[in-house]
Amino acid sequence: MKNDIKIGVVGGDLRQLVAAQELAEEGYEVAVYGFEEYTGSFGMATRCVSVEDAIRKADFIVLPLPYSNDKIHLNMPLSQSEIHLEDIFALIEQRQIVVGGRFDSVAENLAAEKKLKLIDYYGREDFTVLNAIPTAEGAINIAMQELPVTVSNSKSLIIGFGRIGKILAHKLYGLNTEVYVAARRYEDFAWIEAFGYKGVGYDVLEEYLEKFDVVFNTVPALMLDEKRLKKLRPDAIIIDLASNPGGIDFTAAKTLGRNVIWALSLPGKYAPITAGKILAKTIRIIMRETMLNIAMQI
Amino acid sequence: MKNDIKIGVVGGDLRQLVAAQELAEEGYEVAVYGFEEYTGSFGMATRCVSVEDAIRKADFIVLPLPYSNDKIHLNMPLSQSEIHLEDIFALIEQRQIVVGGRFDSVAENLAAEKKLKLIDYYGREDFTVLNAIPTAEGAINIAMQELPVTVSNSKSLIIGFGRIGKILAHKLYGLNTEVYVAARRYEDFAWIEAFGYKGVGYDVLEEYLEKFDVVFNTVPALMLDEKRLKKLRPDAIIIDLASNPGGIDFTAAKTLGRNVIWALSLPGKYAPITAGKILAKTIRIIMRETMLNIAMQI
Amino acid sequence: MKNDIKIGVVGGDLRQLVAAQELAEEGYEVAVYGFEEYTGSFGMATRCVSVEDAIRKADFIVLPLPYSNDKIHLNMPLSQSEIHLEDIFALIEQRQIVVGGRFDSVAENLAAEKKLKLIDYYGREDFTVLNAIPTAEGAINIAMQELPVTVSNSKSLIIGFGRIGKILAHKLYGLNTEVYVAARRYEDFAWIEAFGYKGVGYDVLEEYLEKFDVVFNTVPALMLDEKRLKKLRPDAIIIDLASNPGGIDFTAAKTLGRNVIWALSLPGKYAPITAGKILAKTIRIIMRETMLNIAMQI
Amino acid sequence: MKNDIKIGVVGGDLRQLVAAQELAEEGYEVAVYGFEEYTGSFGMATRCVSVEDAIRKADFIVLPLPYSNDKIHLNMPLSQSEIHLEDIFALIEQRQIVVGGRFDSVAENLAAEKKLKLIDYYGREDFTVLNAIPTAEGAINIAMQELPVTVSNSKSLIIGFGRIGKILAHKLYGLNTEVYVAARRYEDFAWIEAFGYKGVGYDVLEEYLEKFDVVFNTVPALMLDEKRLKKLRPDAIIIDLASNPGGIDFTAAKTLGRNVIWALSLPGKYAPITAGKILAKTIRIIMRETMLNIAMQI
Repeated sequence: MKNDIKIGVVGGDLRQLVAAQELAEEGYEVAVYGFEEYTGSFGMATRCVSVEDAIRKADFIVLPLPYSNDKIHLNMPLSQSEIHLEDIFALIEQRQIVVGGRFDSVAENLAAEKKLKLIDYYGREDFTVLNAIPTAEGAINIAMQELPVTVSNSKSLIIGFGRIGKILAHKLYGLNTEVYVAARRYEDFAWIEAFGYKGVGYDVLEEYLEKFDVVFNTVPALMLDEKRLKKLRPDAIIIDLASNPGGIDFTAAKTLGRNVIWALSLPGKYAPITAGKILAKTIRIIMRETMLNIAMQI
Repeated sequence: MKNDIKIGVVGGDLRQLVAAQELAEEGYEVAVYGFEEYTGSFGMATRCVSVEDAIRKADFIVLPLPYSNDKIHLNMPLSQSEIHLEDIFALIEQRQIVVGGRFDSVAENLAAEKKLKLIDYYGREDFTVLNAIPTAEGAINIAMQELPVTVSNSKSLIIGFGRIGKILAHKLYGLNTEVYVAARRYEDFAWIEAFGYKGVGYDVLEEYLEKFDVVFNTVPALMLDEKRLKKLRPDAIIIDLASNPGGIDFTAAKTLGRNVIWALSLPGKYAPITAGKILAKTIRIIMRETMLNIAMQI
Repeated sequence: MKNDIKIGVVGGDLRQLVAAQELAEEGYEVAVYGFEEYTGSFGMATRCVSVEDAIRKADFIVLPLPYSNDKIHLNMPLSQSEIHLEDIFALIEQRQIVVGGRFDSVAENLAAEKKLKLIDYYGREDFTVLNAIPTAEGAINIAMQELPVTVSNSKSLIIGFGRIGKILAHKLYGLNTEVYVAARRYEDFAWIEAFGYKGVGYDVLEEYLEKFDVVFNTVPALMLDEKRLKKLRPDAIIIDLASNPGGIDFTAAKTLGRNVIWALSLPGKYAPITAGKILAKTIRIIMRETMLNIAMQI
Repeated sequence: MKNDIKIGVVGGDLRQLVAAQELAEEGYEVAVYGFEEYTGSFGMATRCVSVEDAIRKADFIVLPLPYSNDKIHLNMPLSQSEIHLEDIFALIEQRQIVVGGRFDSVAENLAAEKKLKLIDYYGREDFTVLNAIPTAEGAINIAMQELPVTVSNSKSLIIGFGRIGKILAHKLYGLNTEVYVAARRYEDFAWIEAFGYKGVGYDVLEEYLEKFDVVFNTVPALMLDEKRLKKLRPDAIIIDLASNPGGIDFTAAKTLGRNVIWALSLPGKYAPITAGKILAKTIRIIMRETMLNIAMQI
């Protein structure tokens, strides 16, 4: 049954390649293109010599995350060759489902021209939550590397209580760290209390800052400005997990000599196999949902 | 400052009374009415001989949860006397804020007539999450009482992964129970994985049922029908935490001799002081939000 | 193979009976006597009409815990009949191994006369540690029952960091309780720190006492004298898990109106099936060790 | 009071230096020698230009861990100079207490000649347990670095359930790892069960080996021979925490291409500040015990 469904994976990093192998091992027919620089095993996935070969028979076409870095070419860090977005979309037919990460108006316009169906895995809640696991663990790993003390029995602050904040707090608590969480919503404080952490309102955050050995920021807004940075201990480690523009006044941090690590895209860097398995799981779910939808229309 | 704000608490159970004492201890001027049956201490709250006295000077009037059991009278389990809803609303003036639980169209109509502002604490997310703590712990207490084995090292199933399910899973895991969670959404399974529990889809739930020493249902829909009940071990304990109509086919359970405990309103019964403190905290937040709103309009 | 080994279980409570059933289910031939008051199922264990029948063919004879309450009769709470210790020892032959709990000089003298081998399961470290699990959970259950607040988010003190103290601390921490442990040895404080609890020296214990919602004593020496009891909050719950003479000045506690619960023999009372399974596991290990020893001598 | 006690710290690595600073900050008068290569701050500790100056006034003399690497010279990795053991012992007077790590017969003989009192901090149970915290966390850090998957949700095996094994299991469980512990004693299995891990007997270990993403060995005996190494997955990481000779057949592991990391002396390398604070704490306790002993003799 499974090998009736054909998947083409074009471009991306180790994550896409691991996902291709995972899906191939489960019995799907998986063709890949754009990984020439990779010298390891391709498992049961079939390497193609051209993008056409990888795409031609596919029911689902898997594109990178992000699908493009420059809105012109496909994102292919493991290949020397280049593919124009227009060229790849030209190859795709209407019967094929295109799955990729962080599609924007460029991709949408290209798809609209050909009435193609785009599915973005990046925005899915399940994908994001699962990726918060390697992100949180990667952040703890950085803290372990940077701190001259153990994370165990140290005092840590997490700014923000979204997906990453929640999982990070959970794991730090499991390591017997004293966990403080800065948040704003009353609802968040209720959860913080339920899990046994210590909540700190943003309005009183400054009074607490000198306590901490390590501060994790997860909020993509200026959370640690000069005034707050000054309150931190000089030997504290600051790990910024917030996507662009980050949450720290980097200039002030530099002037003050604060140790700031801006840690982006941790899942792929820190635990590529886990990240690839998460992607495989998400593609599997997308395929299932799509097939169910199609079945419903029959 | 605080004793500029006056609070009147009318009716309700131990929770409302504990909340009144908590707030009185913090410096608010709190008048209470409707607790004549209570023989313990009233702390710094002032007992009034009439409902008029309790209400007259109040800025905030706190009503029970639920505010009424019969849509006619105020809910006053700790009093022999009766107050008609119409009578109490007649006493309230427009400058006063009415805070209560589970207001319905009856209350809304009464309030609308006099242009009163009603605030329902029951529906607030922070209140509900905080109450899920005593609910979850109360459910564990029941399991401990009923099981002839320890909850530690036993196998438990939680049906549903909402607020109660999440906190219950967290605490059972903390007791070294093997925790399975039945859920439907992919997003929920991502969280279940992140916290280290075992997820079970509803479609395959039946295959797992004979494993469990205890099953906690949190979903207010028929989750354990006759077919599923039959799959459970005869000595398993089933604790239903879902509000009316519950999640279990009680008739089938009885015929099959299954041990079902329907545990409703646990916070007030199981940990009344905690429940009262949660109510006090919520009223405090409501007062703060209200005052901020008023201040903004100046 | 297993049913070559025959076991006779004489006297005791539900624990011995559950152990008999467990062992019978595994394939051992198990004969029991002394449970006439028990109206439930005996599973695959064979009920005997006389103590002689239960013992005659047995390779291992399992006696109660404690084997006797009065140094004259066998401990048989589930039977109306009485057996003199002398009578039962008269029935036992030298080829049979006698396994029982809390043997004393009376038992040892009786055994010595006939050159019988006695093995005491009560003193075994593995048995004691396993029983500390239901003891700790039973103590938490009592705290849940008695406290008008949740154990979660409350503050608890454990006096002593032996087996029960260690497991109790672990489970309370897992419930998000703030756990303090009073101990004396530097080594204990090292472990207390390693697990994330808060250590308190006995010399400064008094300063801390007013913090706690619940105090668990595990030390069989006067740990809470009048002076210390006075420092506790009047609404605190004191659970004494220490065997005779306990660790609390009960007279002073009564005078002061402190709520003290002396909770002894929790495993059998609180989780009889778990306690029986622990006994079965221990008997199995004793049989294995004995057979290995015999084999070594061949 | 504290600055009546004088401490001389001679030789050692960052740990001894951090301990010196910690003790100096608490009010002790601390003189140090042998850290010329260290370019950071010495805090309130006084640097001496000769070993005589560091020792002369000291009540307690703190030596390195190990006190010597070659039984001839003092262990001084942060100094270019050399001190013969005989020379330093020649300087010490009978009124002074010598505290150091891993004293052997060489040290004992030198001390005996002058009737000096040696106290070895290395062998102390509290010191060893506290150091097991950075060892366990350092091992987790290595696993995080080496594994291409997250430690969370992976399967790990710990061989041995001593101090390091216990703390490692605790922290891995806190990260939601599936934790297996290989042990031998029934007592250990009781504790393993109490904490919710999975116990594996050495006799059946082989059947389990292919499960694991990471194996931590803590037993200083050949635990992973060729036969067992072959059963491990090729991509599994093996972290050996056992002191010389380690627990792995390194030759076989190399031939088989297994990824083995031999991680010794983690506290000082992985978390030097924590290790230094642990040393300071231990010295403090040794001083207190010594002073108490002296006081008792008055």
